[in-house]
Amino acid sequence: MLSKNQLKHLTSLHLKKYRELYGEFVAEGEKSVTELLESTFEVKELFASDTWLQDNATLVNKHRIKVQEITPDDLARISTLITPNKVVAVAAIPKKPEPSADMFSDLILALDNIRDPGNLGTIIRTADWFGIRHIVCSPGCVDAYNPKVVQSSMGSITRTNLNYIELSEFILSAPAGMDTYGCLLDGRNIHAIPLKSPAIIIIGNESNGISEALLPLITERLRIPSFSTGYENRGQAESLNASLANAIICYEFRRRQTTN
Amino acid sequence: MLSKNQLKHLTSLHLKKYRELYGEFVAEGEKSVTELLESTFEVKELFASDTWLQDNATLVNKHRIKVQEITPDDLARISTLITPNKVVAVAAIPKKPEPSADMFSDLILALDNIRDPGNLGTIIRTADWFGIRHIVCSPGCVDAYNPKVVQSSMGSITRTNLNYIELSEFILSAPAGMDTYGCLLDGRNIHAIPLKSPAIIIIGNESNGISEALLPLITERLRIPSFSTGYENRGQAESLNASLANAIICYEFRRRQTTN
Repeated sequence: MLSKNQLKHLTSLHLKKYRELYGEFVAEGEKSVTELLESTFEVKELFASDTWLQDNATLVNKHRIKVQEITPDDLARISTLITPNKVVAVAAIPKKPEPSADMFSDLILALDNIRDPGNLGTIIRTADWFGIRHIVCSPGCVDAYNPKVVQSSMGSITRTNLNYIELSEFILSAPAGMDTYGCLLDGRNIHAIPLKSPAIIIIGNESNGISEALLPLITERLRIPSFSTGYENRGQAESLNASLANAIICYEFRRRQTTN
Repeated sequence: MLSKNQLKHLTSLHLKKYRELYGEFVAEGEKSVTELLESTFEVKELFASDTWLQDNATLVNKHRIKVQEITPDDLARISTLITPNKVVAVAAIPKKPEPSADMFSDLILALDNIRDPGNLGTIIRTADWFGIRHIVCSPGCVDAYNPKVVQSSMGSITRTNLNYIELSEFILSAPAGMDTYGCLLDGRNIHAIPLKSPAIIIIGNESNGISEALLPLITERLRIPSFSTGYENRGQAESLNASLANAIICYEFRRRQTTN
């Protein structure tokens, strides 16, 4: 049974203000929690159903985590998920590493005001899939420790170095000669241009694309070609969403590195 | 002001059963409604706020659509969107064209039990972006006229030919020699294999991948290579989600067609 104070504390972590105050965040769902336990993150406590605890006794013992068994009703109270959840973890938000010179040895994603938690989680997961370890978020991006970001990253957040910093400042701090790529409607067909690595790749906001202020910092404007034909005069698709564009760009950079 | 009967009818269209009974669906949000009006779909009626009507008088007159002005409260009642909505359209579900021989002249997406409305909408939008006009859905896929699918397709549903049919039956009806591609963990690196077009591309379910029964029908098993290194022994990303995998595969097929 959760006490009133526990309930209050756990639900407060749904808000950025309290996550910053306590230096803690929550991870929900079996996949996220399992990945968190296997990571270098400090897990402080688990709240789980009896069935989850029975099924995961070995895992819990291995990590010697404080555990409290709670009812499905209490789980529903502290969860942001729509489908019934079996386990919630409270973990410490890791210290954000200062941007350092060695991060410039590979591709870096620079996210410009990504607002949707599902998109940010998906972008983190995609970066992990393509072995991109450094993500720099503008201060206008949704907080990476938002429960929905954590959940949709499906554990990849534990393997990604995330910084929040003004992107213009960050881009200007990169070594001389390092390219900055951005996806723009008037960009050049990505098929036709050289993709150099290391580089910074800017992913723009879901509705407004890349901020005006960053445009002069882009050294290569690229575009994912559309084949939308607008047949029968019926209009055509105007854009790919931010997380799809990100996936295709990451894919294409890695493809060139391995096959060229 | 909406009458009780109107309210009942409009909210009933959130359910597949009633969409099939009435042969109607709802589209919500400005982008979806505008695209619908510009399409060949039969729009039966609009329900809109006074500000939307003022801003879109020309559009409404051009299409001579029956319009009812309703209050923000009534709009919230008939909408499935979380953010406040300005306009809802009721449209006729188009007759599903029988699969015909000429659909086999280009790439075809075959969706195997895609359950999440957001994923199906995104896949429809991506197909439109890459000029893929035919999508075949297994009967286990979410209904394409679900309001969330319509909304997340952002108008692309009006430019896509969608059929619901057993995929094994469909694949067996394809012309002899036509390849069927499927993304599988033990597939060959997509970089290394020829991608022929026309072809059928199977996209598997979000959790379970491609159905057992379809595996023997796949002529080319492919895999999107991961660069997830599991550094510091911290595990690695296990998969890309269905809509991202779909986007990368569509991108790669079109890239080969244009640059090889």
